[in-house]
Amino acid sequence: MPVPGPGYAITVRVEAPPSASAAGDLTSAVGRVGGVITAFDIVESHTDRIVVDITCNTTSTEHVNDITQELGSLPGVTVRKVSDRTFLVHLGGKLEVHSKVALRNRDDLSRAYTPGVARICQAIAANPDDARRLTIKRNTVAVVTDGSAVLGLGNIGPAAALPVMEGKAALFKKFADVDAWPICLDTQDTEEIIRTVELLAPVYGGINLEDIAAPRCFEIEHRLREKLDIPVFHDDQHGTAIVVIAALRNALRVVGKELENCRVAVCGVGAAGSAIIRLLLRTAPADVLAVDVDGIVHTGRSDMDPNMKWIAEHTNKEGVTGSLHDALVGADVFIGVSAPNLFGAEQVRTMADDAIVFALANPDPEIDPLEAQQHAAVVATGRSDYPNQINNVLAFPGVFRGLLDAQAHEITDDMLVAAASAVADVVDGERLNASFIVPSVFDTAVAPAVAEAVRAAAERSREG
Amino acid sequence: MPVPGPGYAITVRVEAPPSASAAGDLTSAVGRVGGVITAFDIVESHTDRIVVDITCNTTSTEHVNDITQELGSLPGVTVRKVSDRTFLVHLGGKLEVHSKVALRNRDDLSRAYTPGVARICQAIAANPDDARRLTIKRNTVAVVTDGSAVLGLGNIGPAAALPVMEGKAALFKKFADVDAWPICLDTQDTEEIIRTVELLAPVYGGINLEDIAAPRCFEIEHRLREKLDIPVFHDDQHGTAIVVIAALRNALRVVGKELENCRVAVCGVGAAGSAIIRLLLRTAPADVLAVDVDGIVHTGRSDMDPNMKWIAEHTNKEGVTGSLHDALVGADVFIGVSAPNLFGAEQVRTMADDAIVFALANPDPEIDPLEAQQHAAVVATGRSDYPNQINNVLAFPGVFRGLLDAQAHEITDDMLVAAASAVADVVDGERLNASFIVPSVFDTAVAPAVAEAVRAAAERSREG
Repeated sequence: MPVPGPGYAITVRVEAPPSASAAGDLTSAVGRVGGVITAFDIVESHTDRIVVDITCNTTSTEHVNDITQELGSLPGVTVRKVSDRTFLVHLGGKLEVHSKVALRNRDDLSRAYTPGVARICQAIAANPDDARRLTIKRNTVAVVTDGSAVLGLGNIGPAAALPVMEGKAALFKKFADVDAWPICLDTQDTEEIIRTVELLAPVYGGINLEDIAAPRCFEIEHRLREKLDIPVFHDDQHGTAIVVIAALRNALRVVGKELENCRVAVCGVGAAGSAIIRLLLRTAPADVLAVDVDGIVHTGRSDMDPNMKWIAEHTNKEGVTGSLHDALVGADVFIGVSAPNLFGAEQVRTMADDAIVFALANPDPEIDPLEAQQHAAVVATGRSDYPNQINNVLAFPGVFRGLLDAQAHEITDDMLVAAASAVADVVDGERLNASFIVPSVFDTAVAPAVAEAVRAAAERSREG
Repeated sequence: MPVPGPGYAITVRVEAPPSASAAGDLTSAVGRVGGVITAFDIVESHTDRIVVDITCNTTSTEHVNDITQELGSLPGVTVRKVSDRTFLVHLGGKLEVHSKVALRNRDDLSRAYTPGVARICQAIAANPDDARRLTIKRNTVAVVTDGSAVLGLGNIGPAAALPVMEGKAALFKKFADVDAWPICLDTQDTEEIIRTVELLAPVYGGINLEDIAAPRCFEIEHRLREKLDIPVFHDDQHGTAIVVIAALRNALRVVGKELENCRVAVCGVGAAGSAIIRLLLRTAPADVLAVDVDGIVHTGRSDMDPNMKWIAEHTNKEGVTGSLHDALVGADVFIGVSAPNLFGAEQVRTMADDAIVFALANPDPEIDPLEAQQHAAVVATGRSDYPNQINNVLAFPGVFRGLLDAQAHEITDDMLVAAASAVADVVDGERLNASFIVPSVFDTAVAPAVAEAVRAAAERSREG
């Protein structure tokens, strides 16, 4: 049963009799059907009636109906209006374009616009690198999607994906003062996406690909990295991989193991799983087993795309075959980025001692974290209502802050590894424990640490 | 000789002896070589020296050199640094992306981002029109260029065009609270531009084409209007035409003539000239002569593109031929959007009585406005240092404000005519005279009046 949350908070405006028991009657009614009240405001008071705004967390549209029916059935109570706070937050969109320059008078205008701006244009035409100094390219990232793999919603298209991209841009600004702009493309053709991003690139200092389905996303990322002179990052791949590796480093510190001695079962070989495997292997020569719906990936499989082929060739050294359950036997680490409810406590018991379980499928993990805890030493999920939330917001703002500050032309695996170490190191030895392997998403130390690590790695790669 | 202006303002930091005459010596030196001082700040004072920031308007790079040399030649004076104020304004770009929603804590995050945002995505997937209510599409316009015809600079490409597009976006925000975003495309292929804008469109409530060369711009605008369900406006065409028609209406009020009885010579048949001619003919059945480098346009010409053919067929009823000078003889109105210094006072004398001359070539008009004034009753230019500046900023912010407020799916000629009337009507009868036929660009009444006129016209077209 889902827990009522602020993502589904409503405000119900009711008219009620002015009796001494009115407030109690209203709150009891909401409580009876499972709503969690977070605010109770009397907005009008008259001799014959009061008007009250009741704000409460709910679980679903049905739950909202239950609550309003329960309130409306009280004697003398009328429900006037139900506002969904999440919809209110989104009215008119979540982003605004601000001018950083004053335009108060003619002098301002002649510097920021004509005729003065012509000299800036000429400077850039003469020296294209000046665009990184004299235009928004200095601090601006494109958040590009085709709407084909949005959250857990799947292929909902570019218009319906926009609220997520706006949210992403808001997070970029909040956590790293990066200006990010949503680009929702009305095509799912790989070649068209590549060409369009290439044509758009002059305005941006970096490209963040987002919620593009696998395997298309690999080709798009790979080809754009070849074509463009700005870094191309796919958050569902690299952002997730950075935070998973960071969390894994700290989980291994908790249980006192070394990655190179571990067997790691990675379930799911889409965008996230593939990138996690690649970054794992960049970090240490661990024994990795990749698992998908057909079981453990091995070189004997037929019909593999280039991504799967690479994974088959670089994992599963002993060429074992079998199911996810087989892969778990003796494994030190499970990392799931796949589907809900794939196994239970029983399978965790077959893992090695001090097992680490990252069940990251959203919103419902591969295994209920409470079940996993029965036998695992460290458990992490993608959810905010359990300890150890693996959340990309720990990575992408700082990564792009560092890339922009370095005026980087590309992003390398070294930078991803450096970012992962930086996230991990924010959790110092005194705070580290099985329930605290990653910093809070609101920890303001994270983005600057990641930025500095990425910037330094970029400097090294420039010198090297 | 150009006048020193704020578009070329510098701040010179000098170290000078602390003598009583130092300030006077410095300001005299700047004045001797023609710099216009706008600020004089002592930033440090010591017993043996003072450090002074002298801010002054100049005309060119050479002029800046003259000033610093003159200052440096004074006894005991050292020039420490010269800062160009226009470049300082542009450092880091002129736009910022702000979040309109708070992201202070977990509750905020779960409404603006996951998991709450998923419900917004689903609402839009179920009802695509909700994108105009729940996303930035509600208030956002794309400013699209290929960098092929930027200001008077010509084909400088997408990166060098960006400062102009940023300035445009800043003006959109300042004058009409429209969020505008620059899109500088790294292609000048008509088909690629059309396709790219089509793919980008989901995020935007309108498209403003900008500084795209003719005749490509006509095809792009025409085709995009067919393909998209949001309004497509080409500012160099329609913005200019609106302000020219507005100014012309008021100029005709000043001289007491009616447009339908006038002969109008339009010089230049690129983006601006063509749109002016079309909007003129929508406004009244005037007798228009179009003129280009080959002289008066007529149906007997060969090798005309579709735009020129349309103009030939709809102007010059009597089929006259000849030069610009011939076209001016007996003309009531001259509108130039072409090239500098094409004629003089002599030719204005051959026009009809109470002639109206709009010499809009930038930065140097078709005729020196002081010469034009010798025989014309009303003179306008594109320059800010003469009366009657024809400036697109009087049109585009209000036009898009109105289109967005109406949630318009297209823009019609009726809306352009309504916008022109609105701009003209801001100048009431008491203020109207030969030197005041258009409102100031800083008149805050203009954008709301234009927006309301466009919104009303959009409502009418929806009902009609």
